[in-house]
Amino acid sequence: MTEHDRAATVPSFPTSIGISDPDTITVLGQDLAADLMGNVGFTELAMWLVTQQRPTAGQVRVLEAVLVALADHGFTPTAIASRLTYLSAPDSVQGALAAGLLGGGSRFLGVTEDTALFLSRALAEGPEPADDASFDALALAAVQRARAERRLVPGLGHHLHKVTDPRTPKLLAIADREGLRGPHLRLFEAIGRVHPQVLGRTLPLNGAGTCGAALADLGLPPDLLRGFALLARTAGLLGQLAEERRRPIAMDIFQTVEQHARYVEPGQ
Amino acid sequence: MTEHDRAATVPSFPTSIGISDPDTITVLGQDLAADLMGNVGFTELAMWLVTQQRPTAGQVRVLEAVLVALADHGFTPTAIASRLTYLSAPDSVQGALAAGLLGGGSRFLGVTEDTALFLSRALAEGPEPADDASFDALALAAVQRARAERRLVPGLGHHLHKVTDPRTPKLLAIADREGLRGPHLRLFEAIGRVHPQVLGRTLPLNGAGTCGAALADLGLPPDLLRGFALLARTAGLLGQLAEERRRPIAMDIFQTVEQHARYVEPGQ
Amino acid sequence: MTEHDRAATVPSFPTSIGISDPDTITVLGQDLAADLMGNVGFTELAMWLVTQQRPTAGQVRVLEAVLVALADHGFTPTAIASRLTYLSAPDSVQGALAAGLLGGGSRFLGVTEDTALFLSRALAEGPEPADDASFDALALAAVQRARAERRLVPGLGHHLHKVTDPRTPKLLAIADREGLRGPHLRLFEAIGRVHPQVLGRTLPLNGAGTCGAALADLGLPPDLLRGFALLARTAGLLGQLAEERRRPIAMDIFQTVEQHARYVEPGQ
Amino acid sequence: MTEHDRAATVPSFPTSIGISDPDTITVLGQDLAADLMGNVGFTELAMWLVTQQRPTAGQVRVLEAVLVALADHGFTPTAIASRLTYLSAPDSVQGALAAGLLGGGSRFLGVTEDTALFLSRALAEGPEPADDASFDALALAAVQRARAERRLVPGLGHHLHKVTDPRTPKLLAIADREGLRGPHLRLFEAIGRVHPQVLGRTLPLNGAGTCGAALADLGLPPDLLRGFALLARTAGLLGQLAEERRRPIAMDIFQTVEQHARYVEPGQ
Repeated sequence: MTEHDRAATVPSFPTSIGISDPDTITVLGQDLAADLMGNVGFTELAMWLVTQQRPTAGQVRVLEAVLVALADHGFTPTAIASRLTYLSAPDSVQGALAAGLLGGGSRFLGVTEDTALFLSRALAEGPEPADDASFDALALAAVQRARAERRLVPGLGHHLHKVTDPRTPKLLAIADREGLRGPHLRLFEAIGRVHPQVLGRTLPLNGAGTCGAALADLGLPPDLLRGFALLARTAGLLGQLAEERRRPIAMDIFQTVEQHARYVEPGQ
Repeated sequence: MTEHDRAATVPSFPTSIGISDPDTITVLGQDLAADLMGNVGFTELAMWLVTQQRPTAGQVRVLEAVLVALADHGFTPTAIASRLTYLSAPDSVQGALAAGLLGGGSRFLGVTEDTALFLSRALAEGPEPADDASFDALALAAVQRARAERRLVPGLGHHLHKVTDPRTPKLLAIADREGLRGPHLRLFEAIGRVHPQVLGRTLPLNGAGTCGAALADLGLPPDLLRGFALLARTAGLLGQLAEERRRPIAMDIFQTVEQHARYVEPGQ
Repeated sequence: MTEHDRAATVPSFPTSIGISDPDTITVLGQDLAADLMGNVGFTELAMWLVTQQRPTAGQVRVLEAVLVALADHGFTPTAIASRLTYLSAPDSVQGALAAGLLGGGSRFLGVTEDTALFLSRALAEGPEPADDASFDALALAAVQRARAERRLVPGLGHHLHKVTDPRTPKLLAIADREGLRGPHLRLFEAIGRVHPQVLGRTLPLNGAGTCGAALADLGLPPDLLRGFALLARTAGLLGQLAEERRRPIAMDIFQTVEQHARYVEPGQ
Repeated sequence: MTEHDRAATVPSFPTSIGISDPDTITVLGQDLAADLMGNVGFTELAMWLVTQQRPTAGQVRVLEAVLVALADHGFTPTAIASRLTYLSAPDSVQGALAAGLLGGGSRFLGVTEDTALFLSRALAEGPEPADDASFDALALAAVQRARAERRLVPGLGHHLHKVTDPRTPKLLAIADREGLRGPHLRLFEAIGRVHPQVLGRTLPLNGAGTCGAALADLGLPPDLLRGFALLARTAGLLGQLAEERRRPIAMDIFQTVEQHARYVEPGQ
């Protein structure tokens, strides 16, 4: 095969996101400067980029509320990891942000995605329930199956908010007002009603799980919801790093760990 | 020192970002559910988290335009790196996002921050210029000094938009409309006017640099502006990953490189 | 609760890895300067750090061979992602390395770990086979079950080495010479013998899978083997970055993708 | 330009690292299975990958000692960040490793590289000193200039080892034994002798700095030395993660921070 033949095998790389020429930048089929800047909000663009369809105003309002709900709530392991990384490598803000986002996996940020997946799988098994009683029946079956398989029901319970996670009723009200309290949120509410009769105790619907249900009702793909939790958290981590610059604590955290280290002989 | 004495040395870790009790989540001194969700946009919260002061509506509108301008513009090295990482590790969306953000360093995303630093240093050397002529004089001195020190003037020139970067006039108009065309933007415009007499050719003010000047005029710390470029880019990378799932190209990119690899003996 | 009481709740943080005082650094119970430096190799220390038991000379020789086998084999998606990240952020070598490692997930580097897990689960179901015939029977059952569950048998097949992956016989010979051709390697070899009668075609045992089996026979925990593949790859990525500095190609890769981009209207 | 013309512009991508065909894997011009596995150690291969020249046995022994010296020394901010990331995302070992490496920047791991750069710049200003007296003169000039420019001399001083860092004399002895106590190490030793007359106090040569000088004497490029510190640290982080699985402490660290959080009103 000659050099020229080899070159001829190069495929084209299709994209609908962006393309530029000397005078224009096109993003999602729109003129970035003329049509998007000043006319479209950042949250709206974020959803548009993922779905490649322009969201409605109501969808944007629900997504804004979800991103606000998930942005930050104090010292999490990811916030601490990001501050410690910034302490070690203050020249690389991108590294400190990335280190914080890398904690966005199965345990801490995963609830949002796990809840949406749990709900969408339950909904996929039959026609959409027509009323609350039908949602309750579907919820009961889903919770019973999870229990039989010794799996947790994602989105249920919170280590601190034992009775009510305050984000949950607020997000439900916002989605309802926008006409976006769809099957995922309704099934999640049904789980909130029926789970005590299976689990023998009453747990709150947590905010991260409610956010997952709300995002699924926006039509976002359940297995990419983690990405929106990470987008929200990026803003939170920026706040953590700005505060770390203003009033540093990472060195104190490190020294606290170092001072309370206890050496144990290997193998003990 | 006894165990108890050691324990007593643990410091407290101050934060103004977030704290929770069983019934309430407080973020930035506000009740998250009652006061922020549904009332405050995500962009507004992002700026509030960084400055710890509530931004004005005009500041939020300028920041929205900046984030929209920077979110994505097609295949960048960071977008490609993120897609390739997703190809290799599709189970870890956070890893693919982080890999994309890690390219947000000195060369590609750095222009925003570099421009703001260049402008703020020039402005720090004297009182704020009172009129366009004074801005021109300050700009001339700054460009001359950069040239004497053989440094590039950040924000000047673009590999594709040789005459005008379309984002620049649009962002200037938005900032002007909001009363936020401040000293950084005005000095940057002055650089646009005076640089040809020093450099001997006319270069456009690029969009990333204009964004940096606009962010500095919002009062954001120049050495943390990269963080806002990274926040914008997080949304862009989410779009890239969603598209990669819908219509994958990373395998084709990898195979193109592999097929055009040319082995060279070491030491040649 | 008073400040003092709160402080008193701080736990101690046990570790056997390292501790220092003004005159001595202790690592794994050894004096780092007096006992480890100059006496213990880096590969030996890496295994010791993970198992917290000093490996034998034979174990170290097998591990050296595995790390050499996995370090690099040309342009992989992770190598390309690392080079592109270095192009964008040349000030942050750690970011470029991290971006490359983040591709070490389920698809590309995962084979090593997946193979070890597959083998160890099959071995866990009964007593260790006593002879090749018993290994063949166990292998046959494992391959049949995988096929019935429509799962791939990890470690079987290679996109390029269709007949023999040259690393496989070499690693088997090294492990055999060191008396470390244990049950995982023997079961993997048995899979190589019996799979054609289930799958209807003959596939090679690939090198990454053989490495996983060899590491499991060293007594390393199957679900942490990915870590050794990542250690090996760190050296490979260093080589890629050193070469990128000497003879850069990342810009050419980026421009190839950019020039072959094809814009598609969203929704098509 | 036609599609075919565009394709014809694809460049080739040269590399000397690796290439494969169905029967052979070639790494650095060697047959991986036949010539490298079992014959070449991992440390040797790592240096070969970076320099693309086979190192001598003495060079490998010095590099082994450096990697052992830098692998781990207990709870560092990067070790803690890695453990916290593993706590949040235990499904992604690569993410936890990457988070730990991202702290390998200017402050913590940077000393190795900074010291090598400082020494190589001083050496570049004239012919190599012929004897200890000439090294002392060069060292004196370098320390005086750093002090005049209010810059720290990298590699001097340690927060814990106030008199002697035990790694320093050991590494000097190893390099000397191998005939590799070259100009960087000799200049660093001279700095150890002369700095008190400039700084007015006696500081130890720290181990990380000595490692940087030793790596520079191996002929490694000063601005890539950070990469070897990161390779060493990868093994240390693997040890930290293995211990975190065996005897977890990250949750205790997180809860210690959470319990000692002190909320401060924004703006105070």
